[in-house]
Amino acid sequence: MAGQLSNTEAWSLLAGSVACLGVLQNTWKSNGEPIFASLALSGIAFAMSYSFIRWTGDAFMKAGRKGKDMSKKQQIEIPEMMGLVSALVYLLALITFLPFAFKIHIVEATSGGGNKDVVVDVTQVETGRFLHRFPLEKLASYGFAYGTLATITILGIIDDTFDIRWRHKFFIPAFASLPTLGLYFVDFGVTHVVVPMALRPYVGDLVDLGSLYYLYMSAISIFCPNSINILAGINGIEVGQSVIIAILILINDGLYLLPSTPYPHPATDSHLFSLYLLLPFLGVSLALLKHNWYPAKVFVGDTYCYFAGMVFAVVGILGHFSKTLLLLFIPQIFNFIYSAPQLFHIVPCPRHRLPRFNSRTGLLEPSVATFTDEKPLKPVVGEVLKVLHKLRLLRVETNEQGAVVSTTNFTILNLWLVWRGPKREDRLAMEILAMQFLVGLAGLWVRHRLALLVFSQDNRSSIV
Amino acid sequence: MAGQLSNTEAWSLLAGSVACLGVLQNTWKSNGEPIFASLALSGIAFAMSYSFIRWTGDAFMKAGRKGKDMSKKQQIEIPEMMGLVSALVYLLALITFLPFAFKIHIVEATSGGGNKDVVVDVTQVETGRFLHRFPLEKLASYGFAYGTLATITILGIIDDTFDIRWRHKFFIPAFASLPTLGLYFVDFGVTHVVVPMALRPYVGDLVDLGSLYYLYMSAISIFCPNSINILAGINGIEVGQSVIIAILILINDGLYLLPSTPYPHPATDSHLFSLYLLLPFLGVSLALLKHNWYPAKVFVGDTYCYFAGMVFAVVGILGHFSKTLLLLFIPQIFNFIYSAPQLFHIVPCPRHRLPRFNSRTGLLEPSVATFTDEKPLKPVVGEVLKVLHKLRLLRVETNEQGAVVSTTNFTILNLWLVWRGPKREDRLAMEILAMQFLVGLAGLWVRHRLALLVFSQDNRSSIV
Repeated sequence: MAGQLSNTEAWSLLAGSVACLGVLQNTWKSNGEPIFASLALSGIAFAMSYSFIRWTGDAFMKAGRKGKDMSKKQQIEIPEMMGLVSALVYLLALITFLPFAFKIHIVEATSGGGNKDVVVDVTQVETGRFLHRFPLEKLASYGFAYGTLATITILGIIDDTFDIRWRHKFFIPAFASLPTLGLYFVDFGVTHVVVPMALRPYVGDLVDLGSLYYLYMSAISIFCPNSINILAGINGIEVGQSVIIAILILINDGLYLLPSTPYPHPATDSHLFSLYLLLPFLGVSLALLKHNWYPAKVFVGDTYCYFAGMVFAVVGILGHFSKTLLLLFIPQIFNFIYSAPQLFHIVPCPRHRLPRFNSRTGLLEPSVATFTDEKPLKPVVGEVLKVLHKLRLLRVETNEQGAVVSTTNFTILNLWLVWRGPKREDRLAMEILAMQFLVGLAGLWVRHRLALLVFSQDNRSSIV
Repeated sequence: MAGQLSNTEAWSLLAGSVACLGVLQNTWKSNGEPIFASLALSGIAFAMSYSFIRWTGDAFMKAGRKGKDMSKKQQIEIPEMMGLVSALVYLLALITFLPFAFKIHIVEATSGGGNKDVVVDVTQVETGRFLHRFPLEKLASYGFAYGTLATITILGIIDDTFDIRWRHKFFIPAFASLPTLGLYFVDFGVTHVVVPMALRPYVGDLVDLGSLYYLYMSAISIFCPNSINILAGINGIEVGQSVIIAILILINDGLYLLPSTPYPHPATDSHLFSLYLLLPFLGVSLALLKHNWYPAKVFVGDTYCYFAGMVFAVVGILGHFSKTLLLLFIPQIFNFIYSAPQLFHIVPCPRHRLPRFNSRTGLLEPSVATFTDEKPLKPVVGEVLKVLHKLRLLRVETNEQGAVVSTTNFTILNLWLVWRGPKREDRLAMEILAMQFLVGLAGLWVRHRLALLVFSQDNRSSIV
């Protein structure tokens, strides 16, 4: 990577940006159709991320943010932590979108946006309190969402800079989620959940979870960023899965915004909010994916993984669809549970668990943890591993005495390689992403078709 | 610095924190007296910053964040960029304060805070939109202020990490100010200013500055962080001036919140907002000052300077007293204008302009820029410098031909040393800070006594 855009790239990005600016100007004139404005801004965000990732790569290397790609024949150094560029462009896009999101209300109610005819007397000028019709509850959500995402970016940088222990860094996202939880506390404060039909005779229609509900939301915001950070290690997988999850959430949003959906629907605003947050996220992520896809020219860093996961957590929490969100994280949930025996050191865990690169074939193979006398395996754990081996959930090797001497590492990437044999890096990434997409679609189907059997209403098309 | 708290420190901090927690719990029970909660939280923020600065110093050194103090006999390396700790603790404190700030409204209006008797039907649970009495306009300001301060922290880290040119970094704060300006645009949108009496016959009572007003606010948020970043270079001066400015703004806030001020006053909320933002800022800054004061054990980094300046800009803009704010920045404005000839390379500018340490006397002396044949001085500029020398605004040296061969560097610190002779580092810092305080008090006096001559009303005690 020369640090420069090629001519073709430069002209395409420029042309695309100009087109997007045109759209943006039009939406502004025509009283703001925020969805088109959001799309246009996302296009510009793509172009900006794309260019800045290219231009600033050398600066990252110079500042020591670089690493070697271990799954390549020639291990050259490439810039690390480049997700920071995407995160910054994203934050910028979010703020630039603000006036478009609230355009209608500004023109109606203030003298700042376009309508200069409103009579303003001195007291109002001094205090600025006369905008009763402004949809401020959305504005506050927007601000605190921004605050959460800016905070996770800081913490991501800190994580990429300092050598933090795994058991500490696991809780990093909890700090960043505080603005969102704080907002939820003072703004919504709703900690009731709807009870499944079968349980209603016993506990009633609604149960107030109280502070447990905050623990639940906190858990969501700890889980999402970390689960993306754990499903990592091959080119394109961190950004790729984030792009897939974003697309799946957008599909779900679309179900609420289709012309066929009754309007005004109580959840319309939540899903518009989600849309506005995710479109620019897609823009900056696709630009990063282009550079991080096999063979990677940049690494994304924990900064990106945390940032991406927190975008989803914020959207799910403030959009009130955190349970649906979890249905889109099934591969991540599986990977987390599957990893647990190594994360909690029940099974010895090597420093790196990414698939092993076989430089003879150029393919990735499952990496293994070997058990020696210094790092022994408890006999009972060995027996469990052998059962898992029979269930094709692992591949173990035993010595003549029948004792387990090694096992493939406990990650979904290694398991996939056990199932499907050695693969080239991009092929593996592609298959995992396809699986993520299909599982997510199935999750959405369950959510919207089967939920009616458990709850009395689906909040999309309620039958009261 | 051993990286540990002494026994005395540990026990004092612990005792103080426990006391503050007690106050905090009391204010929560008694329906929240936010000012006391803010004070208690600021105490806890002080203890947290103090401890974490001590504990994490070694980690900063290990991650390469370290520098040598050039104004000491023994130039040992100490951690750099430690203002990051203060900024993070501050952000945490700001969010923790959120429920206290809005406690009254939560209990009145939601089922989340304390009053579980409110009947909530299913639609409300699904949408969470029933809090009409909630003061959401304050909540949005709070969220965007948080967003701006988190963003400036990211940009500060980037500035401390990457080698950014001065003319680029000057505009860094503009990015961070966007959340605040965006909020201002959609939320207040007031771009009228009150016209001084003398001009009213010509332009009317109010002038709508339109987009110029946003340029003005943008200039404020670029100026405040940079001006603190420029008045730097000796132990304690960056944090010290920030503490003084914060205290001066608090004094100004106090004028609006005194029992003698008519209540409800239109500016009461703005100044409470300012108070809630500044008290924890004082807490984290004093903890940093203790470690950064002569002889410094840590450096604060551009991260702190940007962060501190942006706190003031946000408070001034959202509190609608940005003109008053500038009166408290007079030494910084002077320093900026005074520095301009070197910043814009009219006069050759050495890489470092901090005062020169005389290791024989242990005192600081004005540092000089010398002019050689490679770095010549234009004759006409030389003549101007000689005039400034006569006015005691510089000290120049001339050769036999009367040509200027060197001048003291153009910073207020060097000028002070020209005026008052060589000083020990802490003595110089102390005198500059005392000057800042006195000039600021005079500024406030002008603001509240003399403003009535120019405008028809002081917004504190209006005579309509």
